[in-house]
This record gives sequence, C-alpha cells and structure tokens, in this order.
Amino acid sequence: MNNHPGTTNAQAAPMCLREIRSFFVGGAIRSLHGLPVEQRRFAQNGPARDVDPNGDHVCGQMYVQAYLQANPTRRVPLLLWHGGGMTGANWETTPDGRPGWLSFFLRAGFDVYVSDAVERGRASWARWPDIYTEPPLHRSLNEGWDMFRVGPREGYASSASERRAHAGQQFPVEAFDSFAAQWVPRWADHEAMTLAAYDALLQQVGPCIVLGHSQGGGFALEAVRRRPRQVAAVIAVEPSGAPQTPHSQDMTPLPPHLYVWGDHIAEHPIWQRYRANVDAHAVALKAAGTRADVCDLPGEGLRGNSHFPMTDRNSDLVAARVLHWLDAIAPPTTQS
Amino acid sequence: MNNHPGTTNAQAAPMCLREIRSFFVGGAIRSLHGLPVEQRRFAQNGPARDVDPNGDHVCGQMYVQAYLQANPTRRVPLLLWHGGGMTGANWETTPDGRPGWLSFFLRAGFDVYVSDAVERGRASWARWPDIYTEPPLHRSLNEGWDMFRVGPREGYASSASERRAHAGQQFPVEAFDSFAAQWVPRWADHEAMTLAAYDALLQQVGPCIVLGHSQGGGFALEAVRRRPRQVAAVIAVEPSGAPQTPHSQDMTPLPPHLYVWGDHIAEHPIWQRYRANVDAHAVALKAAGTRADVCDLPGEGLRGNSHFPMTDRNSDLVAARVLHWLDAIAPPTTQS
Repeated sequence: MNNHPGTTNAQAAPMCLREIRSFFVGGAIRSLHGLPVEQRRFAQNGPARDVDPNGDHVCGQMYVQAYLQANPTRRVPLLLWHGGGMTGANWETTPDGRPGWLSFFLRAGFDVYVSDAVERGRASWARWPDIYTEPPLHRSLNEGWDMFRVGPREGYASSASERRAHAGQQFPVEAFDSFAAQWVPRWADHEAMTLAAYDALLQQVGPCIVLGHSQGGGFALEAVRRRPRQVAAVIAVEPSGAPQTPHSQDMTPLPPHLYVWGDHIAEHPIWQRYRANVDAHAVALKAAGTRADVCDLPGEGLRGNSHFPMTDRNSDLVAARVLHWLDAIAPPTTQS
Repeated sequence: MNNHPGTTNAQAAPMCLREIRSFFVGGAIRSLHGLPVEQRRFAQNGPARDVDPNGDHVCGQMYVQAYLQANPTRRVPLLLWHGGGMTGANWETTPDGRPGWLSFFLRAGFDVYVSDAVERGRASWARWPDIYTEPPLHRSLNEGWDMFRVGPREGYASSASERRAHAGQQFPVEAFDSFAAQWVPRWADHEAMTLAAYDALLQQVGPCIVLGHSQGGGFALEAVRRRPRQVAAVIAVEPSGAPQTPHSQDMTPLPPHLYVWGDHIAEHPIWQRYRANVDAHAVALKAAGTRADVCDLPGEGLRGNSHFPMTDRNSDLVAARVLHWLDAIAPPTTQS
C-alpha cells in the first residue's frame, strides 16, 4: 500500500503559508434514546466498561482544510471538492507519489481549501440505522478498475501482474492498490445533506472558485447555481451529474464553467449516460449566454486519461490546462 | 458547528514547506464472495445501477500527511498520533479556532507527520461483519463531556447554555459542539491491526520522535518498545494505556519518555485506573535506567486542563513545556 513517501520535490519552489487550519461546517445535533448499553474494552490491557450509545451526536458536518498563503497572488481562493467514495487525500499526492493538484494550485498562487464531504474521511459519519437510514456502500477494487476507466471490468485481477488496463492508460496502474487504500465508504442517499454542507462552506468562505471532481463536480455545478454571484468560476472534472435546472432560480447569469473529460468514455455505457446528461447542461448554459467550455482531453491531444486526471501520469499537464483557462478569469495579481 | 475559519494568525512567521504530501501505510487486500448484489442510485438524477460488494477490498491501511520544511532546523521529524475516536484534525486547529500543535511544532522547526489511524478519518474503514467482525462505536457528546474531563457526566446538557464544566476548565467549552464534529467512529478490537500500521509507518519514516495522545499515547509507548533504536524520544499525552512489558524484547535501553497529564483525574475513577497503569510503566522504565519524566500539569502550576491539552485554552503553554523537554533531546541544528 506504500506510495513512495520518500519521493522529494526539492526542485520546486517552497510553499510559504501563513496558516494551515481546519474547521467543520454544517451539521446538527441528533439525540438517540432507547438503545441498549454495551460492555466494551477500549485501552490496551484496560478494563471493559459500559458504552451507552444514547445521547447527542453530531451529524451532517463537513471537514475543511485551508492552506493560506503568506503572499497569495490570486484574488479568490480555490476550493477542491473530491468525488464519491473519496476524501481530500485525492488532491494531495498521486498514488505513485507525485505532488497532486493541491501543491500545483498552491504553487500557482491560490489559497486552497480541501474538504472531506459529509460522511467521508475526517468529516465523520453517523450511526445507522439510527441516524443514517441506509447501510454504507464499500467499493471493491474490481468495480473501481471498471468505473474509473482504468481498464475493462474483465481486465481486473487480484494479482496486479495479471491486470489488463486500457491501451495507453495514463493512470499509474502499478499504484492501483495504493489508490484503493484512499477509498472510503459512502452512502447513496445523502445528496441533500452534502449539498447543505457545501452551501454552508460557500457562505463561510465568500468569493471563490470551485473545482469539483465526479460526484463533487455535480455538487459544484449545483452549488454555483445556488450562489451565482459568489462563485467566480466553476471547473467540473468528469462530473457524474448536473442539476436538472441549469440556471439560478432568479435567472442571475452564471459564472464561467469548464467541463473536463478523460478518455475511454465511448467504451463505458454508464459514463456515456453521465456525460450526455452533463453535456446537455453545458448546452443549456451556453444557449442562455453563460460561458461553458468543454475540455475533451483526447480531443485536445491528451489521450488515455482515466476518470481521475488529477492522479494520472499527465496530471500536471491537465492542471496546466485548467490553470490556463483560469488565468483569463482570475489572473495573478502580481508575478508569483 | 463552525469554529471561526476567518481567524487569522498574521503575526506569526510563515511556514515555508518544500512539500505537503500524503501516503498510506500498512494494510492488505481481502476478497469477499457470495454477498448479494444491490440496486443503488449514485449521481444526481442518475439511474439506479447494480452494486456488487463482492471482490477485493483494502483493509488495515493508515493515512499519513507529511509537512516537510524547506529549511528544517531539527534532525528528526515529529510524528503526531491522535487518540481514540479522533483523526489528525485534532492537531490542526483548536475547536475555538486557534492554531494547533501541528503549526506550533512546524514553527519550532520540525518536519511533522500527522496520521489518521486505521479505521479513522482518511484511513477509511472496512465492511462489517464481512471484514471487521464487530460493529463500530459512536461516542455521544454526553460521554465525551465526562470521559474527556470537560465536566461531570451530570453536567452535560443538550443546550450549551445549561452545561456545567469543571471549575477553572481550560477546555474551550463554548466550542464543545465544534469539537464533537471531529469525532469519528471507532472499533474496540483493532489494536493489533492499528499497531501493525504504526510499525509500518515507523519503518518507513526512519529516525523520529513520536508524540501520541490518549489511545495514540498507548500505541506510542508500545511502538517505541518495538523500535527502541529508531525512536529518539516519545511523548505520551494522557495515554489511556501502556504496554504490560515496558522493556524492549532484547532489553535495548529505551529512549527518553515524557508523560503529560491534565487535571481532574482524581474525580474520574476510569482515569485514575488508566493513570495508575501508566504510572507503573514509568516507574518500571526508571528502575531500568530509562529517562521517564512525568509532567503533571496541575502539579506544575497549569491547572484546569482537560483530557485534550492540545485543544485547551493554554495549548501553546503545554506545547512549550513539551518543546522545552524536547530541546534537550533534539535541539535545533540552527537558530530558527
């Protein structure tokens, strides 16, 4: 499961931060009553003791890390929203040990906020069926290999040496098990709760740019629809969904949108459907006068990207395209 | 649940990092067979699809964030290990929005590694009863108020204004709900799995100092026993357990130990037992010639600390005492 922690990036410029902080947004307290008391042991060699699950529990909160520059060169911060079954770890380091998009966009001069959505990672999760109503979903490596378009489902094998990826695959396939170490369970029925927490985050952060991936891309498209005056731009990388109503309720013009797509979508019926849904969203925005640019990576000469361009071997190239698009919208205030 | 994300710390020196990275250590792949396929919907407005839980799953891994200085002034890094039901978020920012021990020790010149132990936070957790055998434990605010020695159990109330804390409490009681937002579920029977992952971390990081809190303090005391030549010093803050056999198997002398204790232990029978167990460990180490210092905060004039000195109002004062102790063992290589 190790992914080269010893790798260094000494040639790159240092990142000077005035603050590294974390906080929680959203959430509420729920009280439980009438559940049986259990006897459990906790500490090494410690005695068993009563565990009473009844009482107050926080649920619905989201975790956010803020990396705030000593000398930011961008006017608004960048928010990175991960996809389904992921956490903010997705942005930190690629599974094969290279600096991820967190470092890329810090070095580009942005203050960066990395969040763990409700129920994921450090955001914690609540009891079921007492608070959450459904059981969690745990994704297998077999499913991820297929759904993340690393290779065809039948190309997955428990033995790494026997796996077959798509030809020209940019995902670092040798690090697929390391990648799977960062997957977390998720629930299928929590969209409203998660969106409420993202909305609380936007309310708190103020003007910003949102970059969301997969499920987080769908949340980003919905969040900007709700707060069109506050979000300066939205980048949806491989969004798995889009709002049914593309416009803001009061028809306020929406800020610029960028949609980024990897390769091998034609071979995956689920992704064909997801993309058709999102493409229709982009078309509707454009028709209403919103800038809505689609970056189809293979169409632009970057072939072989998986569902995770930020972890693929060419992750810096993809990030550079996003940054180039952003430079027109949120240019550096000074030379960085 | 908000904890003042707008608070800034502009007067403090910037932290210049050459790298912010994360990685996973430990863990193995487990295969599941024979479980029923479910129909679930994932994306916003997306169609339902088959979810097959069978297949390969990673379990037993731990998540680690490394904050590596552009110009470290200490020879070895500092590893921060959180307590039971917590994550690495515990070290980042106090519940009332002040910089936590992560920033304190970065500013003191250390490279710092923050981990989420197995099953906690970004380390993810595995299916039960298929992989984990027991159900998780979710701590209520009621229990935390008591167990963390914020106040007596009967002093807890759902309404914050009706809560009664211990007199002179250093914990920021007004931020108790924000603090509870960072608690994560835990399992009671995973010590061996968690210790294996910590051992993998130590193997990977090399020479270091370990600072562990509560359950993580117990793990730190055991980990240094297993790797006495590698760990330069261990600080156990309010450890909830200690190894039954204090010494290394081959009787290699152990590195210096510091035990840090807060206030109000006399009022809590569970903590009296935990501390008696750990005090015996310190006595055994001293008898064998190991430096084993006990820092009883109220005995040293710092009164009112809870089980979480790193989140208490005087967290910087407590950190300064730890740093003073460390300065003799791992002094700065240059003036920072």
